[in-house]
Amino acid sequence: MDIVRQESEAPRPESPRRRRFIARGAVVSLAAASGAGVSTGSAQAATPDNLPPNIPQWMREPGTGFLNPAYGLPSPFEKTVLRKLPDQPSPFPTATRTPLQSLFGSTTPNGLFFERHHAGVPAIDPAQHRLLLHGLVERPLLLSMKDLLRFPAVSRSHFIECSGNSMAEFKAPGKGSVQDIHGLLSGAEWTGVRLADVLREAGLLPASRWILAEGADAAAMTRSIPLAKALDDALLVYGQNGEMLRPEQGYPLRLLLPGFEGNMNIKWLRRLKVGDAPFQTREETAKYTDLMPDGTARQFTFQMGVKSVITAPSARQVLDGHGFREISGLAWSGQGRIVRVEVSIDGGRQWQAAALDGPVQSRALTRFRFPWVWSGQEAILQSRAVDEAGNVQPTRAALIASDGQNSVYHYNAIQSWKVASNGEVSNVHV
Amino acid sequence: MDIVRQESEAPRPESPRRRRFIARGAVVSLAAASGAGVSTGSAQAATPDNLPPNIPQWMREPGTGFLNPAYGLPSPFEKTVLRKLPDQPSPFPTATRTPLQSLFGSTTPNGLFFERHHAGVPAIDPAQHRLLLHGLVERPLLLSMKDLLRFPAVSRSHFIECSGNSMAEFKAPGKGSVQDIHGLLSGAEWTGVRLADVLREAGLLPASRWILAEGADAAAMTRSIPLAKALDDALLVYGQNGEMLRPEQGYPLRLLLPGFEGNMNIKWLRRLKVGDAPFQTREETAKYTDLMPDGTARQFTFQMGVKSVITAPSARQVLDGHGFREISGLAWSGQGRIVRVEVSIDGGRQWQAAALDGPVQSRALTRFRFPWVWSGQEAILQSRAVDEAGNVQPTRAALIASDGQNSVYHYNAIQSWKVASNGEVSNVHV
Repeated sequence: MDIVRQESEAPRPESPRRRRFIARGAVVSLAAASGAGVSTGSAQAATPDNLPPNIPQWMREPGTGFLNPAYGLPSPFEKTVLRKLPDQPSPFPTATRTPLQSLFGSTTPNGLFFERHHAGVPAIDPAQHRLLLHGLVERPLLLSMKDLLRFPAVSRSHFIECSGNSMAEFKAPGKGSVQDIHGLLSGAEWTGVRLADVLREAGLLPASRWILAEGADAAAMTRSIPLAKALDDALLVYGQNGEMLRPEQGYPLRLLLPGFEGNMNIKWLRRLKVGDAPFQTREETAKYTDLMPDGTARQFTFQMGVKSVITAPSARQVLDGHGFREISGLAWSGQGRIVRVEVSIDGGRQWQAAALDGPVQSRALTRFRFPWVWSGQEAILQSRAVDEAGNVQPTRAALIASDGQNSVYHYNAIQSWKVASNGEVSNVHV
Repeated sequence: MDIVRQESEAPRPESPRRRRFIARGAVVSLAAASGAGVSTGSAQAATPDNLPPNIPQWMREPGTGFLNPAYGLPSPFEKTVLRKLPDQPSPFPTATRTPLQSLFGSTTPNGLFFERHHAGVPAIDPAQHRLLLHGLVERPLLLSMKDLLRFPAVSRSHFIECSGNSMAEFKAPGKGSVQDIHGLLSGAEWTGVRLADVLREAGLLPASRWILAEGADAAAMTRSIPLAKALDDALLVYGQNGEMLRPEQGYPLRLLLPGFEGNMNIKWLRRLKVGDAPFQTREETAKYTDLMPDGTARQFTFQMGVKSVITAPSARQVLDGHGFREISGLAWSGQGRIVRVEVSIDGGRQWQAAALDGPVQSRALTRFRFPWVWSGQEAILQSRAVDEAGNVQPTRAALIASDGQNSVYHYNAIQSWKVASNGEVSNVHV
């Protein structure tokens, strides 16, 4: 079986006409190339090509030796590609958002991975950190990081999404960018230990059904985890995109529950207590429950729904000209692999399959692409994801019809971006 | 077809005995857990488990709000995990090496990706940067970054290795760490444009066979690329692990030739000239040719060989106790996918298959793992990789028998680490 990166059978740009990707201005005479300007001349301007091109300043003298030899940083020209606090100032900000509009592929750089804290970021000395495993087990364990690093390791790519991501869209279309609206979402390659392996060391007692997970932050962030998930694909992770976890992602140890809502992936993990029932913590009673139209609340809505969003073009961007451009975005599901993403450029009347970047992995960000030639007319761009369990991303109307508008969690409706005839892109509810 | 991460049929730790991964000291009575110390008590010390564990200082007060909200950095406790200049001081250092011994999975964080420069790092304004495509084409093109960003994009994971990586091992075993010896190796998810797509826009003339690629550094680093590679899997990349290329990796544009020696992946790419023969640049005549024992030199040895190295345990580490530990390392090949890695713990007499982390991708770093129980006796650890083209990583003796000791490039022999009875690990030639 060949599992090198595959591209799906979805459309490549329709016709193999030449120079359909670029504006005619990019075709130059060499006379223009050897000077500073870019000709707007046509392909007919064939000229001798033995002239050297213009030599930029940065070729005239040696560059800096090593910018940051020990640990590198992005180019100063990328200084606007940053995580972002909410626009509304707060004395106690609790989240930063990932700049989805500026990123490529399916990896979120560690420096741009979104943050959500309940009591700030604790400064944990990994040599002092311990994980206590107790409760309904044969042998309580107190594990150091050194102990955990000696277990067999696994590396897997998974997304994490805050269950409150895009919550404001339940009410009205937000004015912000895709970062503001959907930026509580990131993905990484995680490395750690199977929770099942650690539980086996402790020996589960027959009555065990749930596990309390507690963080070592001042909030002692605490959630109940069903044992079935713990024994399935749960990991105790210490690695993120090849290096140790970042402080704001739980350094030195985090629970990873692939596909479950972000807050359950307990950061700074210090304690696992095995019990026979959910522990009914504050974060699963007063918070993180979903209020339905009939006044009841859903509890333990662990899995994130199937969802996708177009990141380019997206709100607050302005298209800089007509012609070919690629529509690109991310799709993900808490219930498995993405099997299909469809794109509409007319507000949902017609749909066409997008190409998926491979390898497509379970409960991981999947990049989709769709070729588009913008003629300059108004358009409504949408994407719709389908996962391997058969879940289809709902329209906003369908989501509200079933769940109402009181739940601030698990908003996964189709996102609509309106492209105006002047190229401005904005968030609309259609 | 399910292509979620697969683990090969290679051995899991042999027997399912309990508590085989951790030292007995990790099993605690809760009395110990509630204090500061870790008991060395046995599993029999069952006690009530309703005592709260010790509350560390970092839970007693809120953490910092946001450490680096805009662009995050590693924990201060990870300050020793850094790229490294050579031990021998130089007025003109030209390389930093990746800390392979400290990394997980198959991704190299951008901040730790190895560097090799020929004239420092140019500070390029992406708005001013242009790529000139000329020579044997119908239409010369001068492309801005904006032009290139409008082409269809692809994202692919590939390693880059300096062809001089581990060159000193041709002569004698180096005294350094795996970072010092093999650290001119890194891997990333790259995003960019197929070079074939751009060449199609320009229109290749019938005589075209080779392409000159030139960098916009003060060295004007220049190499000849066979057209077949350019039309196969070559990319013009602007993205690295989800964000824009780092300055030291060629910001804003780099040629990526998957599996070819590092220096050919021209950074700060400014010019592609299509010709009918190799251009015989300095970097492929005076440099980057391989001197053979008979006095002739191999030229255009593009592909990196099949290679692997154990990163843990590795030289300069000291095993901190007997018992279970995982042997882990990286394998890669310039000729395709890794299909098998074998590990020997007795200096190459017996070999056993290691597990491969999936998805295994072509010309990409592949993490392998092998369970090992160290009894405290001296051991010689080796790994041997096999790629899908059937290439087998050679022993050092076999490599020298065929290529001699004058070539400083393409050293891909099996690495041997000696574990002494006191736990010290060192580099040996066996």
